[in-house]
Amino acid sequence: MRATILYGPQDVRFEELKDPKIINPTDAIIRMSATCICGSDLWSYRGISPISQPTPFGHEYCGIVEEVGKEVNNIKPGQFVVGSFATSDNTCVICKDGYQSSCVHREFISGAQASLLRVPHADGTLVATQELPPNELIPSLLATSDVLGTGWFAADAANVKPGTTVVVVGDGAVGLLAVLSAKQMGAGRIIAMSRHASRQKLAREFGATDIVKERSDEGIARIKELTKGIGADSVLECVGTQESMMQAINSTRPGGHVSFVGVPHGVSLDGEHLFFSHVHLHGGPAPVRRYLPHLIELVLEEKINPGKVFDLTLPLEQVSEGYRAMDERRAIKTLLLP
Amino acid sequence: MRATILYGPQDVRFEELKDPKIINPTDAIIRMSATCICGSDLWSYRGISPISQPTPFGHEYCGIVEEVGKEVNNIKPGQFVVGSFATSDNTCVICKDGYQSSCVHREFISGAQASLLRVPHADGTLVATQELPPNELIPSLLATSDVLGTGWFAADAANVKPGTTVVVVGDGAVGLLAVLSAKQMGAGRIIAMSRHASRQKLAREFGATDIVKERSDEGIARIKELTKGIGADSVLECVGTQESMMQAINSTRPGGHVSFVGVPHGVSLDGEHLFFSHVHLHGGPAPVRRYLPHLIELVLEEKINPGKVFDLTLPLEQVSEGYRAMDERRAIKTLLLP
Repeated sequence: MRATILYGPQDVRFEELKDPKIINPTDAIIRMSATCICGSDLWSYRGISPISQPTPFGHEYCGIVEEVGKEVNNIKPGQFVVGSFATSDNTCVICKDGYQSSCVHREFISGAQASLLRVPHADGTLVATQELPPNELIPSLLATSDVLGTGWFAADAANVKPGTTVVVVGDGAVGLLAVLSAKQMGAGRIIAMSRHASRQKLAREFGATDIVKERSDEGIARIKELTKGIGADSVLECVGTQESMMQAINSTRPGGHVSFVGVPHGVSLDGEHLFFSHVHLHGGPAPVRRYLPHLIELVLEEKINPGKVFDLTLPLEQVSEGYRAMDERRAIKTLLLP
Repeated sequence: MRATILYGPQDVRFEELKDPKIINPTDAIIRMSATCICGSDLWSYRGISPISQPTPFGHEYCGIVEEVGKEVNNIKPGQFVVGSFATSDNTCVICKDGYQSSCVHREFISGAQASLLRVPHADGTLVATQELPPNELIPSLLATSDVLGTGWFAADAANVKPGTTVVVVGDGAVGLLAVLSAKQMGAGRIIAMSRHASRQKLAREFGATDIVKERSDEGIARIKELTKGIGADSVLECVGTQESMMQAINSTRPGGHVSFVGVPHGVSLDGEHLFFSHVHLHGGPAPVRRYLPHLIELVLEEKINPGKVFDLTLPLEQVSEGYRAMDERRAIKTLLLP
């Protein structure tokens, strides 16, 4: 098969690679229906998180099961499945508590921007649909694999409840789907922070009631103005920088909740500042597996359309252009079709 | 009256000071039944949090109301009251949400190591008992004012629930009362981290089921051994140093809860480390006012005896020796009687 390999900054190649095989009896091989490029892939693409050797990239996937190992019982060849970017046995105490992305058997998926993918711990990682889904739902089903699951976790970890006031920091695909998630959870007011017209539009479509263009201190002041001087109940940090994290913490009311769902890069929190902010803080790799059955159902019932974040669709072999378009912010998120 | 003034490191004096007067119509003046020295007072006593000028010290108090301002309606002269170290109107949205220690009208009490104290926002800050309490309960009632309220918040903020496994980092008075609080909340297992025999004994008396003497990496390894390699559900950080905070975060299972209730000194948290730890983090100045009615009731019904943390009782005029004894760890906590 041919697959996406990152060689170094700005150097993505689509090359011949051996087909993946079953290695462990708990593995499955799936044939990709669609895959995509994640905002987090850009950290390495931009050289901010350097890679030490040429690396198969991609961790968002859905497709048809091709083959399963001998110990796989729940997943069968021919089924359509979605899985999380983090594998999980879904039976350990951490999984049972809903933190599958910290499963004792966790591995991070890599190499999904290809036509075939080996998924370890298939029984605990993959969720199959009852029937093969219609083609037009594939983008939204793919979105549940990471970007929606992560936005959903952002809203859940920040304790979004019916009627509460929510701020979303970050207008990337995760931030936009965090808006959608907060809306689904019944938030009364959803303030999206965005300076880009096309992203503001999608944020409003997904449920944002207010848009704040300002950043940093001005952004915080604007949020305070909109929240009786006190700050928001829930602030969802969907970027991963020092600036966005400070913006999130300082926009939250005492006793409120801050979530952070993108791997922080160069972020350092001062203990005393955090103490007097009086916020709840929770984040980490999204336990997508916890949410997958519900999110897949919402998509199949056409109650949500998270696939709208894909504003560029390319054949998989043009993956390199897909990275460029996202790097240059010409595209929110690139869908890749094998 | 005479009052405690901190002049600088190791320089505590008990001197003549003007009696406090009603300044605002929402003030009350109370005559101290007992006061005490807080672990947090030691940060300034040791010169770690330097003071800029001679400062009246002390913020834990209970006593008899002497006089109230014209707008005080709930509190009457002659009543016995306990108040929090942070004043609150108890009516703003932050107070209503239970975060009275971040009230929009918050002031931090200072000058309670004296015979008289002015308490701003008396209606929202003080809680009166129905009758004058018996003398033998005064130490435990005083404890509700801060040290128990703070230990209780540590347990609450770390989501202690019936049956859960709890670790308490810190064997000072707050840590010991965090053990008591976790026990009251039904924790199944309470692991106290302590190297001091007398404190271990009190921890066991308050409900600790296990004692861990090791610190840092060895301490974390020991907690992991005791928790099936996964970490505790709730870890209560009751110290405020970088070492104790790291010990707390690294002893918690993914998805578990860390609370921190002592003002952090020189603590810096790495965003990426916090992200992959997958913990919930919540702390800040304890909203003691939220808990006061319940804690006072538990004391009056003699269900708890938090006053046991006072292992040294001195006349108020010997306050200087009280500081020395705590600084040298000869005493856990010093009770001062005017």
